Amino acid sequence: MNINIGIVGATGLVGTILIDLLCNEGYGNNLKLCASDNSIGKILQVSNYSFELVALNESFFNTIDFVFFCADTETSKKWVNIALEKGVFVTDSSSAFRMYDDVPLVIPEINKHLIQTCHGIISSPNCSTSLLCMIAYPLHKNLSEIEEIYVTTYQAVSGAGLDGMKELSDQAKQYSQGEDVISKTFKSQIFGNCFSHNSAMDEDSGYNEEEIKMIQETRKILNSDIKVSPTCVRIPVFRSHSLDVTIKFKNSVNEHDIRKTLSEFDGVKVIDDRKNNKFPEPLLSSGQTDVFVGRIRNEYWDTTDKIYKLWICGDQLLKGASYNAFQIFKEYKKLINDINNKPSDQHEKWHEQI
Amino acid sequence: MNINIGIVGATGLVGTILIDLLCNEGYGNNLKLCASDNSIGKILQVSNYSFELVALNESFFNTIDFVFFCADTETSKKWVNIALEKGVFVTDSSSAFRMYDDVPLVIPEINKHLIQTCHGIISSPNCSTSLLCMIAYPLHKNLSEIEEIYVTTYQAVSGAGLDGMKELSDQAKQYSQGEDVISKTFKSQIFGNCFSHNSAMDEDSGYNEEEIKMIQETRKILNSDIKVSPTCVRIPVFRSHSLDVTIKFKNSVNEHDIRKTLSEFDGVKVIDDRKNNKFPEPLLSSGQTDVFVGRIRNEYWDTTDKIYKLWICGDQLLKGASYNAFQIFKEYKKLINDINNKPSDQHEKWHEQI
Repeated sequence: MNINIGIVGATGLVGTILIDLLCNEGYGNNLKLCASDNSIGKILQVSNYSFELVALNESFFNTIDFVFFCADTETSKKWVNIALEKGVFVTDSSSAFRMYDDVPLVIPEINKHLIQTCHGIISSPNCSTSLLCMIAYPLHKNLSEIEEIYVTTYQAVSGAGLDGMKELSDQAKQYSQGEDVISKTFKSQIFGNCFSHNSAMDEDSGYNEEEIKMIQETRKILNSDIKVSPTCVRIPVFRSHSLDVTIKFKNSVNEHDIRKTLSEFDGVKVIDDRKNNKFPEPLLSSGQTDVFVGRIRNEYWDTTDKIYKLWICGDQLLKGASYNAFQIFKEYKKLINDINNKPSDQHEKWHEQI
Repeated sequence: MNINIGIVGATGLVGTILIDLLCNEGYGNNLKLCASDNSIGKILQVSNYSFELVALNESFFNTIDFVFFCADTETSKKWVNIALEKGVFVTDSSSAFRMYDDVPLVIPEINKHLIQTCHGIISSPNCSTSLLCMIAYPLHKNLSEIEEIYVTTYQAVSGAGLDGMKELSDQAKQYSQGEDVISKTFKSQIFGNCFSHNSAMDEDSGYNEEEIKMIQETRKILNSDIKVSPTCVRIPVFRSHSLDVTIKFKNSVNEHDIRKTLSEFDGVKVIDDRKNNKFPEPLLSSGQTDVFVGRIRNEYWDTTDKIYKLWICGDQLLKGASYNAFQIFKEYKKLINDINNKPSDQHEKWHEQI
């Protein structure tokens, strides 16, 4: 069966990477790309394919079967309903509907079964949350229930899109040339600096939106009442987020089993060479679809074997965004090709609720 | 009383800053500077003073009363004993003797009383540990005993001295000019990257030396069996370390009291503006002697009011090294000027043990 695929937000960082992934797997002829006003009519050349960027309007959804939303939350809130009304299957990378009870939050390695019974829309999780869940889930499922996670992030500027990357690049150049360093995208200088994540802060709790997402989405994805305690920080790295994590298990586990379980989990790569001081680094995980993990060790004072620390690096644009959405698409395609397992067709029933 | 002051390691980053601090307070005429072989005979000009860099040998200690050791651990191990034999009072910024029972580990705001009864040598703590203790101590002393601290660091390249700073600067330039980025000081590229702290790793426990220092030195400075659980990471920041900290108190405390206690503690500055998303940043604390703290909040899931999270930034070259040593000197000077409180004169008794 031929699927026509639309991308909303095709010129953004997540959209651009998604186009590459789709073209590399031969979907170039099935792709239709939407972009914001100032890009409409432009031609995008990717490998052997050329695409005209079209406007986002209702008729766009008449021509496609599956759509990736890779734009901002406002765009998803405005247009996802319309896509669903037209019977288009939606994978949304924004946070717009992630916490809706009726919208599965899917990391295929963890919960791809939810695609089959969904109501025409799947949300793809927050980037830092995806990386955390890829490590927490196999341990939680195979070794012991996880009760608490303390997590501290080192987030790349590309989390703020192309503008974030350009800002770090520009500032490095300004510094090198002895010029004034100018901040446009971030409130504070990012070159040679780091700061609390730039998302909006909940003044009552003192947690920012990125942290709240990690708290809530982890529970939804792992289908568990795990208590996540996060601090999210932006650092001057272009691509790949890093996470320092302390996990408290309900039962005793051992280091060997943790390492083995993670090594065997699809999409995870263990780099944990104490002798040579070689562990995951954002530069190593950039461009990789696997999530890297290392520095796996028992908490220094723990006598119960229930508390472990580890260090995660992963390309948040790939497994944390584009690649995860692409995996959802591939799972969806497998389902519609299998007459016995076709996904439900209840778009209309559901979309009226959002 | 006139004190003649020596600096061993005068051309390093910590030594250079110490010379500035001493000259600014009028000690320029009392200073004698040692440097490594390739700098001997060179003239150093600082404000209105000029210094000839002399060789480190036994006779150097005949001419001084007080010496700062700001070189590496090996230099301290070799020469501290000799300084003590000659009756010179030693402040050692290396880790050589920090964990010796007979050597006080001093942060003047916390335990300056130990200077008076010491045996002629004071150790100045590890940089990250100093910043942590400056925040933990007032809470531990005034609000509730602290039982556990989870700490994750974001450490500046200047922790590896001038070479570390030059490496980040050079790599930013290489990147900006489209050249290959070359790593000399660090094993991995630091520009646009971060990595597990580059100190030696204990293969059994999986903790590196920097982390072990934080675990051990915090207990010694706070004179308590606090369980510190650290992860130390190097990030591409020139100066000022940042720390994400989760503190577990023995008893319930409230956010208001934490903020008030920290605000009132000498050497600490609270920056905690949730409304404007303004918190400590390494660029803000660089060049400042105060340790900055913010993002003070109750752990998200805590119903006991015993767990709090906070974010610390501090210039590890100042409060974490040179300035702390300088404060020790000033406290020492106060004591020797006070005939009733003169420090003990037991150098000889003690130094035979090391």
